[in-house]
Amino acid sequence: MKWTKTHLYTLKEAPSDAEIPSHKLLVRSGFMKKLAPGLYTYGAMALRAIRKFENIIREELDKDGAIEILMPVVHPKELWMETNRWNEMGAGLLKFKNRNNHEFCLGATHEEAVVDYVRHDLKSYRDLPKNIYQIQTKYRDEIRPRFGLMRGREFSMKDAYSFDLDQEGALKTYDSMYKAYQRIFDRLGLQYRIVQADAGNIGGSQTHEFQLLADAGEDALLVSDKTQFAANIEVCPAIDVEVYQPASQAELPIEKFATPHQKTIADLEKFTGIRAFELVKTLYFSANEDVSAKDSSLKAFAVLLRGSDEVNPIKVKNLLGMTNPPQMLTDEEVRQVTGANPGSCGPVGLKIPIYADNGIQNFKNYIVGANEDGFHLKNVNHGRDYQVTQFADLRMAKEGDKCPESDGRLKSYRGIEVGHVFYLGQKYARKMNGVFLDKNGKSQFYEMGCYGIGVTRTVQASIEQSHDQDGIIWPMAIAPYHVHICHLDPKDAAVNGFVEAVAKELESKGVEVFIDDRDERPGVKFKDADLLGFPVRIVVGKKGLEGNQIEVVLRRTKEVSKLAQDQVVQKALDLLEQAK
Amino acid sequence: MKWTKTHLYTLKEAPSDAEIPSHKLLVRSGFMKKLAPGLYTYGAMALRAIRKFENIIREELDKDGAIEILMPVVHPKELWMETNRWNEMGAGLLKFKNRNNHEFCLGATHEEAVVDYVRHDLKSYRDLPKNIYQIQTKYRDEIRPRFGLMRGREFSMKDAYSFDLDQEGALKTYDSMYKAYQRIFDRLGLQYRIVQADAGNIGGSQTHEFQLLADAGEDALLVSDKTQFAANIEVCPAIDVEVYQPASQAELPIEKFATPHQKTIADLEKFTGIRAFELVKTLYFSANEDVSAKDSSLKAFAVLLRGSDEVNPIKVKNLLGMTNPPQMLTDEEVRQVTGANPGSCGPVGLKIPIYADNGIQNFKNYIVGANEDGFHLKNVNHGRDYQVTQFADLRMAKEGDKCPESDGRLKSYRGIEVGHVFYLGQKYARKMNGVFLDKNGKSQFYEMGCYGIGVTRTVQASIEQSHDQDGIIWPMAIAPYHVHICHLDPKDAAVNGFVEAVAKELESKGVEVFIDDRDERPGVKFKDADLLGFPVRIVVGKKGLEGNQIEVVLRRTKEVSKLAQDQVVQKALDLLEQAK
Repeated sequence: MKWTKTHLYTLKEAPSDAEIPSHKLLVRSGFMKKLAPGLYTYGAMALRAIRKFENIIREELDKDGAIEILMPVVHPKELWMETNRWNEMGAGLLKFKNRNNHEFCLGATHEEAVVDYVRHDLKSYRDLPKNIYQIQTKYRDEIRPRFGLMRGREFSMKDAYSFDLDQEGALKTYDSMYKAYQRIFDRLGLQYRIVQADAGNIGGSQTHEFQLLADAGEDALLVSDKTQFAANIEVCPAIDVEVYQPASQAELPIEKFATPHQKTIADLEKFTGIRAFELVKTLYFSANEDVSAKDSSLKAFAVLLRGSDEVNPIKVKNLLGMTNPPQMLTDEEVRQVTGANPGSCGPVGLKIPIYADNGIQNFKNYIVGANEDGFHLKNVNHGRDYQVTQFADLRMAKEGDKCPESDGRLKSYRGIEVGHVFYLGQKYARKMNGVFLDKNGKSQFYEMGCYGIGVTRTVQASIEQSHDQDGIIWPMAIAPYHVHICHLDPKDAAVNGFVEAVAKELESKGVEVFIDDRDERPGVKFKDADLLGFPVRIVVGKKGLEGNQIEVVLRRTKEVSKLAQDQVVQKALDLLEQAK
Repeated sequence: MKWTKTHLYTLKEAPSDAEIPSHKLLVRSGFMKKLAPGLYTYGAMALRAIRKFENIIREELDKDGAIEILMPVVHPKELWMETNRWNEMGAGLLKFKNRNNHEFCLGATHEEAVVDYVRHDLKSYRDLPKNIYQIQTKYRDEIRPRFGLMRGREFSMKDAYSFDLDQEGALKTYDSMYKAYQRIFDRLGLQYRIVQADAGNIGGSQTHEFQLLADAGEDALLVSDKTQFAANIEVCPAIDVEVYQPASQAELPIEKFATPHQKTIADLEKFTGIRAFELVKTLYFSANEDVSAKDSSLKAFAVLLRGSDEVNPIKVKNLLGMTNPPQMLTDEEVRQVTGANPGSCGPVGLKIPIYADNGIQNFKNYIVGANEDGFHLKNVNHGRDYQVTQFADLRMAKEGDKCPESDGRLKSYRGIEVGHVFYLGQKYARKMNGVFLDKNGKSQFYEMGCYGIGVTRTVQASIEQSHDQDGIIWPMAIAPYHVHICHLDPKDAAVNGFVEAVAKELESKGVEVFIDDRDERPGVKFKDADLLGFPVRIVVGKKGLEGNQIEVVLRRTKEVSKLAQDQVVQKALDLLEQAK
């Protein structure tokens, strides 16, 4: 492909809404262009990368007998009402009415659609197992789309759905999809981690995320320094290395004391001289989930943690069996529940459920807000002064915490979630009457799993992990082209002849060649070659050709070899091998 | 591929909403399944056919240097306001608000999106020409989806957009796309016609439709029996073979006469003894286009035709320079305009514009409604009794009319529009500021063309043209598989071995083989093989294998050869060659 024959325009400046390197680079390289917030047009180059990744996915899934179909983007409301996800999915599910006043949504996921597709077919145990997938456009009504394709509104996803006879079969399929995902991400040649994760409102009890490591990743991961343990911070068990020992086991008399203007844990730490690790903070949440529910009276609960810890809303959600993480109360609601402003509130005297993090279980004689503005209580003891509804692991784990599987420590990484495998059990089958007759002629619900890969997201995440200050460094497996020829003298017949011959020879060996034949200065061509980031670059002009000083450059290292004409192709092939 | 390894369930009965053979066959074969009206899931087989057709399109367009990109499905309102098509497209454009209350639509076509994509890039004459395409899901909010993928809501389309320096370049690109489309549809090996057509509200002055011929086609085509002339009836010039000669050139005095209960032309023909060809009928239309316009007072006009002719609303639209074909007045509106009920109305005394078909230009002393219920006028003459605003060709052409290019006659066909090429001129460039600097540094609008192929529609149209009472007869080029092996004894080791060997040998030659290895009776397998319709069938069981009576069948003709083991592969290859 010649540059002048395609549609590709690089930009000197990144757009102001691009916050992370991969987003900046995808726009600056001309690979994608914004139509509206969260909506991007993929240019010819980006499309090549996307298609290559799609084909990697297809090859690996087809090896395991998965079946590719294509389901609609637009779904009728009736379908989503069967599982009640029409209501549960929240505002991210884009809903609309058509001209006949029927309600539809844009599919954000396809569990309902795929069960509808198979439920009249899967009649007998002989019809199972099945593993069905599609690569389709998905839509999520993000309030604030950002990071380009990472948190866009419209994006491409591979979603697979498995149907098994029983749990044993379902977990076997889960395991084989897990391995297929490993093969897929291994082929990208990038750094990734497989972590334990939360199932969100998809449902299901076993789930792993595939996370490409990158500093700008939205997910915090914790990885053991001793074992294979790795988890999304959302679900990572928090295990203390330091166990707090109270100064005295005797419970002292409770006392109120004035704490004017001491509103934060940091204030209190300074004011009392007690470190945050030994202070207790109280947070207030709403247990109301369905905002459209008729009974909208506030159902509050409190969560107690050490002052040095952060609450983990996912753990709270899972403890309470909620569908979505709970919302914190507003200041007004806090006053309604406690009688005081946030900063002076505590658990004593409250009539709401109180959940406490394990970290404070053996606290004695501690300080909490007095539920009276400007006052705290000291020598407070749970059991005596207030009742804890339940102790549980409710805090965010953090770097340095103990590994749950060994005496190792947890190390912190940032990741971009590019794949997710879920074991769903019978959730959808039960709600949508997904049944088959077993060997004994008995009706049974089938067991499902679902498995997603963010196709466009992975392409951008690859760049987020693999770039330098000058541009993209494409992984070989999804590079739009393999070799970039900077053709410095497009009007010179000899150079033209050489470039054509090199391109032809490389292409005959399956190498995809891109030729910058624009009428531009060498400096512009070099900068753009770095920006576009194809694995190997060949630089050739009249001078270099005549002086046997043709440059062959590996994009990743920028290592330059200056070669004679007959050495160029072999060197390029060697570097491509090295770039794999 | 083995049947038991895929997800494919045939049906004995077609669904009640399937009216035409291709729709029935696609559902009965299990190739697609309805999620909701106009929304279909494509099974693995249909997807193979769709992908094959997509690749044919890509290969032929890429030959001409067209550039594939991918634009979003969801578009912001602001974009469509630039051309005012947000209002002009009518209710077929599905519009919605997102959670932030911004308005969007689902792309029914991508002129606006593609101009936005290129307009900041195409700065100089050096950047032109460009021809950009995508294969993308489109959405059209059909009131009554029907005919499966033919008039569905969600469908897949290839849409290309060309940008040229000037009209000469644009028409050259038009011509090369026309030829690419010929190559694409030639490769399907089906009967099609290229016809003159109306540009609809896409705009543009030159346009051709590619129509696959099929009895159930929604479009009426007229084709010359002498020349290459072919046109969609919407735009086909109507040229009389019989020219009406009035009995007398003298204009007789006008007379009102009673015509009780004579409301239709057929009534009047019977009542007066004058044939419909010599009667004049008056139709009333609204010139109001934009229903949202503030000035919604009725602007009516009348159209006069011979009683034996049908009005062509597209010709009326084009004569009046309207965006969409005009709506006929309601009975109430007719009374408001004429003072009489439909059936007794005519042109005399009206204060609205009157357009008349060329067919009545030399009429004299004719009968029209008197604008008084139960009365007509006779000896009416235009010029004397009322004024014709303009004579024009406003009737539907029909079989037997004169060929516009020769002394031949027109013959009627039904077609399914599968492709459409448009020359757009500067319409979109002017509205969206699509400019470049020419060689003299002067700012110019570029010239555009647009070119669509209904991908999913073509797949179904192919079946509509190519099937018999027993099932589909796939064209080789898009057949999901080439050879269908009815494996009658899946538990017999010898037959298994033979089937595997035949499949392997055929696959090594690039033939795609589907094996029916289900535990079903032979009769079921034969019926299903006919229904699925892959080009060549091999039938083999224990008996056939031992008796050298292995059947090789061409689906199209059902011609059966009974062969020895070592002849089967060659015969299959020969028949595949024949099926091309």
